[in-house]
Formats: sequence, C-alpha cells, structure tokens
Amino acid sequence: MLKMLHMSNGRTQVPPDGPLGKALRELAELKIVEQARDLTEQEIAEEMRKADVVITNWASTPIPLVLAEDPGELKYVLNLGGTCKATVPLELIRKGIKVTNWGDTPAQSVAEGAAALLLAVLKDLRARVEGLRDGKGGNSRKLGLASGTLMGLKLGIYGCGVIGTRFVEMMRPFKPDIIIFDPYAPKLPDGCERVDSLEALFDNSEAVAVWAGRSEETERSVTAELLAKLPDHGIIINAARGEIIDQEALFAELKSGRLRAGLDVTVADDYFPQGHEAHSWPNLLLTCHDIVSAHWPKRPPSLGYAGEIALANVKRFIAGEPLRFVMDEARYLRSS
Amino acid sequence: MLKMLHMSNGRTQVPPDGPLGKALRELAELKIVEQARDLTEQEIAEEMRKADVVITNWASTPIPLVLAEDPGELKYVLNLGGTCKATVPLELIRKGIKVTNWGDTPAQSVAEGAAALLLAVLKDLRARVEGLRDGKGGNSRKLGLASGTLMGLKLGIYGCGVIGTRFVEMMRPFKPDIIIFDPYAPKLPDGCERVDSLEALFDNSEAVAVWAGRSEETERSVTAELLAKLPDHGIIINAARGEIIDQEALFAELKSGRLRAGLDVTVADDYFPQGHEAHSWPNLLLTCHDIVSAHWPKRPPSLGYAGEIALANVKRFIAGEPLRFVMDEARYLRSS
Repeated sequence: MLKMLHMSNGRTQVPPDGPLGKALRELAELKIVEQARDLTEQEIAEEMRKADVVITNWASTPIPLVLAEDPGELKYVLNLGGTCKATVPLELIRKGIKVTNWGDTPAQSVAEGAAALLLAVLKDLRARVEGLRDGKGGNSRKLGLASGTLMGLKLGIYGCGVIGTRFVEMMRPFKPDIIIFDPYAPKLPDGCERVDSLEALFDNSEAVAVWAGRSEETERSVTAELLAKLPDHGIIINAARGEIIDQEALFAELKSGRLRAGLDVTVADDYFPQGHEAHSWPNLLLTCHDIVSAHWPKRPPSLGYAGEIALANVKRFIAGEPLRFVMDEARYLRSS
Repeated sequence: MLKMLHMSNGRTQVPPDGPLGKALRELAELKIVEQARDLTEQEIAEEMRKADVVITNWASTPIPLVLAEDPGELKYVLNLGGTCKATVPLELIRKGIKVTNWGDTPAQSVAEGAAALLLAVLKDLRARVEGLRDGKGGNSRKLGLASGTLMGLKLGIYGCGVIGTRFVEMMRPFKPDIIIFDPYAPKLPDGCERVDSLEALFDNSEAVAVWAGRSEETERSVTAELLAKLPDHGIIINAARGEIIDQEALFAELKSGRLRAGLDVTVADDYFPQGHEAHSWPNLLLTCHDIVSAHWPKRPPSLGYAGEIALANVKRFIAGEPLRFVMDEARYLRSS
C-alpha cells in the first residue's frame, strides 16, 4: 500500500480524522508526525525516505536538502498550498521528484474580492457612507463624486493568468470593454483586446486591475508616469502584490483625490498605524491582504476545492496517470 | 411623412439637435413645443390630435383625457421613461392607442448597483475601513467580522422580472446557489431553483435580494418573522422599493448587529438626518436611491441604450412591425 507522510513542527494541520485525512486513509497508509522540531535533520530525512509521498503545507517540516541526493522511496511531494519555497528545496524538482500544489484554488476567492473592491470603489461606497454620517447627504452629485458604471468602462487587465482570467469572467456580465497586457499569456479570454505594452494599457484604460506575478520585471512597474495616464477619477485595483506598484506615486494620486483605489495588498503588506493619513482618504479601500477571508457561511467540514485537487492527484499518482498542477522550476521560482 | 410631437411644460428634454432629436428627424417631422403650461387643455389636445406619435417623458405635458375620446391622428405614444402614469391616461391604452416605454433600460445599472452592494456588504468593507481608522486593524477575524463568499452561498431572489434576471446573470460567475420566489415569472433563469412561498425563500437563503415590484401584495411583505429566518450575519439587499420591507423590523435586526444590509431604497426614500443611529451601523450600506448614478466616465453625447430602444420602435412603427416594450393595462398599473 502507498505510504504517505506528513510531518509538522507543531500540531498537524492535516488531522487523520479531518475530511482530507479520512479520504487519504482510504487510499494509502497515512503517517502523521507532530512536533518534528525536536528531531534532528537526519532523523527527519530517514523518516521521509521511507515514504512514497510526503505531504507539505505552510506549517510542515521542511524537506531536508539531502533528500535530493538520496530520496529513498520518495517519489512525490503533495503540497497543499501555493508556493512551497520554504518547505521543498528546488533541488528536489531538479532531481525529478514530482511536486504539485493547489493549482487554481485561490483564483475564485481572490478574483471575487477584487470584484468587490472594484465595484465598491466605482460606486464610491465609502464616500457615500461618510457623506451621510457627516450630514452632507448621500447624493453622489451633491457630494461631488464621480461614481460610475462598468458598462462600457475601459477596463485594463495587467497580467492574465489563472486569477486574471477568472476576474475577467466575473466582469463580463457588467459589460466593460476589456484590454489586456500580458506578454506571457499565449491566449486571452474571448472578446478582450491585447495591447503590447504597459504604456498602451494605461493610455487606454479608465480602471486597471493588477494581476501580474511579482518578479524583478514587475516590481514597481506601475510607475508615476503610468498612473498619470489614467483619467481623473481613474481606478487602480490590486489584489496581487503590493510591490508591483510604485506606492508613493499611487498614494500621491490618492491624497490629491485625483485617482481612486481598492488595495488588498501594499508594499510589504504594511497597513499603517492608526492616524496614518491613508485611513482618511474616502477614495481608498484598504483590506489588508484579507479580502479572501470568509468566516461565513459556516458549513460542515468538507474537503473543499483544494482538498479535492489533492485527492484527485493522489489517485492519479496511484494509477500512474499524469498529475495536475505540477511545479516545474520556472513555476517554483515565480510563485510567491 | 410621419408627424411626431413632444410638448413640455418648461424647456424640452428632447432637443431637436440632441442625439435622439437628430435621429428622429431623419425619420419623421418632429415638432417640439416648449412652455406648454401656458396653453389651455383644449389647445394641447388640438395640437396632439394632429400628430401620429406623441413623445412623452417625466417632464412632458400630460396627454389630456379627452384624447381617449377623440385621438385624431394619434396612434402611438412613445414614452422615453419607465412609468407614464403622470403623463398618459390609462384610458388611452384601453382605447387601443399603442404606448411603449424604455423597456429594460435601467435593468443593467440597477442590477450592477445591487451587485456592488451585495459584494461590499458580504466583504464587510465598511467595517474594515472603520476598523483601520479606529486602530483596531483590518483583519476580519480580529474585527469579529463574518465576511463571506458568494461561492456556494444560498442566495434568494424575491421577484425575478427584467432586473432580477439581469442580477442573476451578474451573480452567476461568483457561483452562488440561487433560489427564486416569483409567482408571476413563467420561466426562471437556467440553473435556479423555484420555491413557492416567501417563507420557503427565507427558510433556505443566507442572503436575499429584493426585486419585487411595489403593490398591495408586496408592501411590508418582508416581515419580522421572515427576517428572523435568516441566519446570523444574513444579508438583505434592496434596490427595488423600500416599502416592500418592514423597515422597523429590519432596522431592529441591523441595530442588534445580527443581520447585514445594503439598501438603495427605504420607506418613502427617507434617508434620515445627521446623527440618526442608522448612520452609525457598520453592517449597513445606505445609498439613497442613487446607486445607479454614474457621472463618470464622461463620453460624447450619444443616443444611449434608451434612445436606441426609442428609435428602433419608431422604425418598427413606420414599417408596421410589432413594437417592443408595449405597456398593457397590467404593466401600466404595476409600473412605479
């Protein structure tokens, strides 16, 4: 029978009687080792070499580099999250050990969060609430608000991978005119126009949603010059990575009231102490890398989307079929 | 050539050199009479009897009742808005004069506004902003917020006419489970489940969007008992008519913090003075029957969606083809 192992430094996040644990135990022998921080690297390596599959997640015990030299029985690392830079050495991938991750699991909820930010910013919901509270009424024209509609809005998409594509699908029924800059996307969603530079994207957009991955190429790529190309009341939505935007330049545009923004992320995910001027800008919604959090509605414990991806991959592995969401070196390095 | 007439009590809202006026003048002789409040009813009636088509809107001169007795040449009333109770006597429809309105023109923007409210309430955007401002941070769990996701959410739709249907289309990519109560809708959007009572709707929903028309049957139909059926953190969205909800009951649920709401409308569209306690509830977004307002992005003057509907109907009338969005007696009485 297939031997699966999950080691964690503290208590396990994959309890054997949880939905995933139960499902895996029907397919394999599942060993859970907790408090592995008390073990030596050699003891950890020996334990892992006895397993066919090691399960990792953000809280799991890192796989020792020596496994790349001598993997023992280990053939497959099932990572339950996105990136695994902290727990799986790249050398393992280079040696041909299969590593998979949760694929497009976060796409739906991140895209949904960004859609909420875009609509709320477009409708000036924060400024309307504050207008009522301050006795200025709730009429957008009297409050001097631009508000706006997605219908016919020139919506620019910077980066159109899995999440950007999902976001485009969510926007479609609202009927914006969508243009996309993504030099790496071989195919764009139907009905969207491709532009071949960031300059062209900002020249032709009224709102821009950032969906690029973080890399040397993208860091601070949304510059003051590009932001200046957006029309007055133009909108920036960022639920990708804060570092992609020149934050000082964006904040200057928000402080002056010229642009509007919904930011789930900021540089270094720093959200500024009480009294910081950013908290007083009615044209900014800041959601502290937490827009995907959903504590409601409560449901009975279930595998969930990520669990189903993991389980399906284990079944494929047992059947000798190709795995989904395999991390190659490029994907490993790009993940963040 | 077809004779068209538009009379207004003050200055015209249909200038002959505006986009619609220009387009109509290519098809017909268009007469505009301004300041018609100075005319007697008999003078107005005589003028209207000479026209094949009278154009009405919210600011136009009411068609005198005597036209129903003797319409002269009048065969068609082109109403540029939704309801025409104030400007077109029902007797005209009963006598067989064709009356059309702007059809589904407002559907897209009202549905978009309600989508913005639902997403913003679901993500607790107001409470997050206030948490940051008050130094409590922006983490939803630490703030004790439910937040939530539309994925798998049990979303109830009360009334599924033109706008409700558009709203359902906008929600679809977010993957809620949609149930609908509408005893008058012969056919529901694909993939939605029908329930046969308001009780069943509230028993099985986590969020409810109100899209019913206002009538004796629907006024105060969302009762305290129905609201009590929603789970804690449940959501009410109303961009239809305030009178449909027992507002005192809803406000009690909002004041206690048990439910959440996004309300574009309230009873009598009264939005409460500064200092009213409703303005202090972080679980309420109030947008003062103004969520559809879009002053941005500015575009060159164009026919717009409503103008295109009007123009197409005039072309059909000239060609002797069936008109779209014809007001029958039931529709006339239901409009508000």
